[in-house]
Amino acid sequence: MLENMNKTELSQLGEFGLIKHLTEKIELLNESSIKGVGDDAAIIDNNNLQTVVSTDMLVEGIHFDLTYVPLKHLGYKAVTVNLSDIYAMNAQPKQILVSIALSSRFPIEAIEELYNGIYLACKNYNVDVVGGDTTSSKSGLIINITAIGQVEKGKAVYRNTAQEKDLLVVSGDLGGAYLGLQVLEREKEVYQTNPNMQPDLEGCDYILERQLKPEPRADIIQLLKTLEVHPTSMIDVSDGLASEILHLCNQSEVGCQLYEEKIPIDPTAVQKAVEFNLNPTVAALSGGEDYELLFTIPMSDFEKVKGNPNLTIIGHITNKDSGVNLIANGGAQIPLKAQGWDAFLKNKEENS
Amino acid sequence: MLENMNKTELSQLGEFGLIKHLTEKIELLNESSIKGVGDDAAIIDNNNLQTVVSTDMLVEGIHFDLTYVPLKHLGYKAVTVNLSDIYAMNAQPKQILVSIALSSRFPIEAIEELYNGIYLACKNYNVDVVGGDTTSSKSGLIINITAIGQVEKGKAVYRNTAQEKDLLVVSGDLGGAYLGLQVLEREKEVYQTNPNMQPDLEGCDYILERQLKPEPRADIIQLLKTLEVHPTSMIDVSDGLASEILHLCNQSEVGCQLYEEKIPIDPTAVQKAVEFNLNPTVAALSGGEDYELLFTIPMSDFEKVKGNPNLTIIGHITNKDSGVNLIANGGAQIPLKAQGWDAFLKNKEENS
Repeated sequence: MLENMNKTELSQLGEFGLIKHLTEKIELLNESSIKGVGDDAAIIDNNNLQTVVSTDMLVEGIHFDLTYVPLKHLGYKAVTVNLSDIYAMNAQPKQILVSIALSSRFPIEAIEELYNGIYLACKNYNVDVVGGDTTSSKSGLIINITAIGQVEKGKAVYRNTAQEKDLLVVSGDLGGAYLGLQVLEREKEVYQTNPNMQPDLEGCDYILERQLKPEPRADIIQLLKTLEVHPTSMIDVSDGLASEILHLCNQSEVGCQLYEEKIPIDPTAVQKAVEFNLNPTVAALSGGEDYELLFTIPMSDFEKVKGNPNLTIIGHITNKDSGVNLIANGGAQIPLKAQGWDAFLKNKEENS
Repeated sequence: MLENMNKTELSQLGEFGLIKHLTEKIELLNESSIKGVGDDAAIIDNNNLQTVVSTDMLVEGIHFDLTYVPLKHLGYKAVTVNLSDIYAMNAQPKQILVSIALSSRFPIEAIEELYNGIYLACKNYNVDVVGGDTTSSKSGLIINITAIGQVEKGKAVYRNTAQEKDLLVVSGDLGGAYLGLQVLEREKEVYQTNPNMQPDLEGCDYILERQLKPEPRADIIQLLKTLEVHPTSMIDVSDGLASEILHLCNQSEVGCQLYEEKIPIDPTAVQKAVEFNLNPTVAALSGGEDYELLFTIPMSDFEKVKGNPNLTIIGHITNKDSGVNLIANGGAQIPLKAQGWDAFLKNKEENS
């Protein structure tokens, strides 16, 4: 990604120069953004609203691979995965803080591309960049984003409030982002073996976009309002469906029956899973990075969500003693285990 | 720092296990901390107060050197430098978010030490840890902290509101943290040449503490309230006095006369500067990391601060055309230049 760019060395601008260069385009969109970049801290106003904050760190070589992730997409995704956490509280994101550490291998133009992605995501979701930190690293790129949102008092939706007999609902479809990653990893290997080979990405648009440019489900939060559906609990799907269901159930002290046949998976994802000799259900359960919303609703809201193309009822909440189970297509009941992406185990494998 | 510890590998706990392990001791201290660690985001209440947020990233090998910085001190400092930014807005810090990335060279016990420092700082300044992210890195330790504070509407103090004829005031003393760093660097070199040599730290307690365990000036914010002094502008001294004065003056579109003879420097710092063949004034102007508060007050408040042992009047604000000048001890007028610690230039030197 770095080869074809103009290169202005970071040291030509210096830290303050770089900050100025990167932030001079910022226009504050939200009335609540009283003070943005340029002081010791940003100031955000509140009018009997609750402030919701979340933070995520992305590390080169662990969370992203610049051999196939364009920097603009990386910036976009770094923002949207944070916004997803705010929406998962039923809140509206309003501001972000952006910290980046980068080595001198990155020219200004590379960082601009990264920020172009950051600013595009902010524009698309009506969010202000109100601060951050920019520093150097000994190796690689690290991005930390803190997202700040607002929610009316009493309207936030937690993970630990699912109720027995609730319906378990997920937005969109699952597994696509993981299969997009498999395609990118395969093409990287092909490229490394023979740099003259053209990448074979035909028919992969949807799953590549799921991996490279995930969109948080702001629309689902709006849809639920329109449908007058009040989720009893909610979480976003970042580590895989299995892991998120276990979070909801463990924290709410309930059990769950999840039906394999109900799990929504896009046809492209199914097809690619077969190509990679993977079980599509496993991709959905353990793949992660789909950034869909998983939530529970009272049975009385069934009619409101039934048949909605954006929402799929995939199971129901039981008492704790029944456990958290997958009902497989053949009818077998299998206890669900978290096999989500685990940064430390992944690193361990890579090191060993 | 890592040699003498018990070692539990991170992979034994996994990401969720580590988060649980590190956060199970947290007790929320502030009524406004509605929801802490354990959901997609934290929730912070507001009662017609403004939320103030700031973030800082610390990178191993750039901002700290684990050969002489104990992990507990590092955790403590990572928090306090962020709180300093909140106080510099005349606000009260209330919550922090902590993101860390670490390689598998760090055992659990090392991370616990780091967090012990983080929790101690939070306890000392009545701040809650309400969230964060924990992940792995390919090399080294990266810490990103976001601090969130509150301030009454209209009470925040900015950088860009210094007025002509205001007095320029600084808390505490300057240059100590930089000279503490010089001592640590010297002893590191001695140790690398001869590991059997005992470090020569006698008489350095004060400046080492300034470097390793800086305290943000919460007391000064309180003092100013008690004295009924309302700063017209304020900033914390993180990059060196010269750099901060230039920020204040440039953003406020004013000039300044700074008197060398007035700059408060601790006797230990003066003595060590002489030992290192450094000009103490240069250490104060360019050293940084003192985390004192630099602010401007109306001339009418002169009697309120005069003779206060915590506060020193070091100059006064002039019109923009007069420039930003140091009046040296001999009487010469020298235009002030920012020679603050510059992460990129520093890295550049190290690489070259």
